[in-house]
Amino acid sequence: MEQKIAVLGTGVVGQTFAERLTNLGYSVTIGTRDVVDTLSKTAPGPYGNPPFSTWLKAHETISLATFAEAAQQASVLFNCTKGDASIDVLNLAGAENLSGKLLIDIANPLDFSNGFPPSLSVCNTNSLAEEIQRAFPMLNVVKTLNTMNASLMVNPALLPGEHTVFVSGNDNRAKEETIEFLKAFGWKQANIIDLGDLTTARATEMLLPIWVRLYSTLKTPMFNFHINIGQPI
Amino acid sequence: MEQKIAVLGTGVVGQTFAERLTNLGYSVTIGTRDVVDTLSKTAPGPYGNPPFSTWLKAHETISLATFAEAAQQASVLFNCTKGDASIDVLNLAGAENLSGKLLIDIANPLDFSNGFPPSLSVCNTNSLAEEIQRAFPMLNVVKTLNTMNASLMVNPALLPGEHTVFVSGNDNRAKEETIEFLKAFGWKQANIIDLGDLTTARATEMLLPIWVRLYSTLKTPMFNFHINIGQPI
Repeated sequence: MEQKIAVLGTGVVGQTFAERLTNLGYSVTIGTRDVVDTLSKTAPGPYGNPPFSTWLKAHETISLATFAEAAQQASVLFNCTKGDASIDVLNLAGAENLSGKLLIDIANPLDFSNGFPPSLSVCNTNSLAEEIQRAFPMLNVVKTLNTMNASLMVNPALLPGEHTVFVSGNDNRAKEETIEFLKAFGWKQANIIDLGDLTTARATEMLLPIWVRLYSTLKTPMFNFHINIGQPI
Repeated sequence: MEQKIAVLGTGVVGQTFAERLTNLGYSVTIGTRDVVDTLSKTAPGPYGNPPFSTWLKAHETISLATFAEAAQQASVLFNCTKGDASIDVLNLAGAENLSGKLLIDIANPLDFSNGFPPSLSVCNTNSLAEEIQRAFPMLNVVKTLNTMNASLMVNPALLPGEHTVFVSGNDNRAKEETIEFLKAFGWKQANIIDLGDLTTARATEMLLPIWVRLYSTLKTPMFNFHINIGQPI
């Protein structure tokens, strides 16, 4: 039987993961607050992309359900929500539907309240990933992929040359399972750096301030951090 | 006449810059709080390196003076102090000795009060570089080189392959002068990224949390960030 995955969030990041995971053979349900409301929206997305209902019709093997229904069916969840919504969304998913499951957290605690560039709503001695882990101790939270554009997350070969993805988490088995997903997306072992426990997510979330400024400077989101150690790792 | 440079700080970073700048033909004076006290110390440095007086004897063309004397003679200053001492050191140098000069700020606001890894004492919506600029508006502060090991700062060729140095500052002429130093150290134009004004120093100082964790993971300081944009820039 296909492994069931819940993608939390209907935005471009959620769509990107849902499509890629479906193409890799997983059974994907996207979670949302209100299925009827999500399907009734007709306005284009923030990047001029089509409304969610149009996208979903073009991806007929992907299901849409409430956060709770999506989480209940799944063994693995991808947190593709905005950072300021993540805890609320997981509360809607319900602790009883999260127990013992892997949450791959790619969200960032971006604070746009003062416009662009955003600051972080939590950083330095705390992180969004740790806040999620503390709020849902029954989840195995692994932070990864949050340091680049969504299209690169699931298809690193879109950017030629070597570049790096970081992994942070408290549970080694959960990190191993996450790394299998990364490899399925196309990440080479040599470009995957396990930084250690979930406190190291502070460090990867703190890459976002330079990411957004590089986006302004380079005029493209198609770049990534590469940790050059002068030799193959 | 040789251009006179003040290196503020007698630690390994200051020594590294003083030696490299001297070898490039600059006239270098290292600034310290108390010349007699600095020369009288006989304990080895924190990395087992020789005491400063021993190092200085082996570098006889480099002078030692008070912060004020070093700053007064110089047209360019390198801030090689610890972040938590930088403002104090510049006060000792004296505002009257800083007016209109370039300060190349490579310090980081590391807070070791809770041990390793350090957090940052200022970040997110502020930076050490901006604090220095606000305290000394007559200085032209340029933040650069703070995102890597000192030996790589002044000799990037020590690490094979491409890697990146960032530049932040409010004054374009000061940034151009800084970039000339970077090129003298061996940095290729294609690997120098001007991020914009001094607020972008928030973003480069916020690279330190992942730098210190990578140092723990990789067991070497000989690595650096490379911004891979998939083609030569």
